[in-house]
Amino acid sequence: MDVVNLTQKFALFSECWSPKVVGELNGQYVKLAKLKGEFVWHHHEQEDELFYVHQGTLRIKLPDREVEIHAGEFFIVPRGVEHCPVAEEECQVMMLEPASTLNTGNVQNERTVESLEWL
Amino acid sequence: MDVVNLTQKFALFSECWSPKVVGELNGQYVKLAKLKGEFVWHHHEQEDELFYVHQGTLRIKLPDREVEIHAGEFFIVPRGVEHCPVAEEECQVMMLEPASTLNTGNVQNERTVESLEWL
Repeated sequence: MDVVNLTQKFALFSECWSPKVVGELNGQYVKLAKLKGEFVWHHHEQEDELFYVHQGTLRIKLPDREVEIHAGEFFIVPRGVEHCPVAEEECQVMMLEPASTLNTGNVQNERTVESLEWL
Repeated sequence: MDVVNLTQKFALFSECWSPKVVGELNGQYVKLAKLKGEFVWHHHEQEDELFYVHQGTLRIKLPDREVEIHAGEFFIVPRGVEHCPVAEEECQVMMLEPASTLNTGNVQNERTVESLEWL
């Protein structure tokens, strides 16, 4: 295990909505993703999901409200809660979730990433 | 659950080596701590521990080497590995570890924090 520099890791890829694994602890993955545009509404049955914004602004639509997460802030989406990430401009996000978590949760579509790449 | 702003949370306390809980996911706590000086050598039998540096520089002594973690970087200490955090100047660190984790791991001394405060 080496020290992981977020800025350096984000420089290694450009595609959006394609999480890369950069660490693992206690059965969870640390993932980095660039997000731009609107994702799909979904939820994770058994997994809480943490979104930490490294650069830019991420909005997460929730059933009853919407949160805005800026650089240096995080938000945890509890298991079972429907959510839809949206980013007007590209943002860089570090996520924490169980290694078993599928990015689109209960939904399977063209946005679903089945095999995760380590960076 | 609200959005957590790390800078704002760190402004709420000044003591060092006294982790505060700012989030929980999948049985793990997100903790913030200010560190200055040298901690104690210890390990965690069953828990991997992530250190993300928000401000300053953290060094972690390991049995065979030493790592230096700067702002915007993280390092994961695998379970069972002896380590000793050191900070020449005060640094601000976000940690991720199972809710059951004791800060001094297998060691119990005056640095041990038994009851964790939520911020």
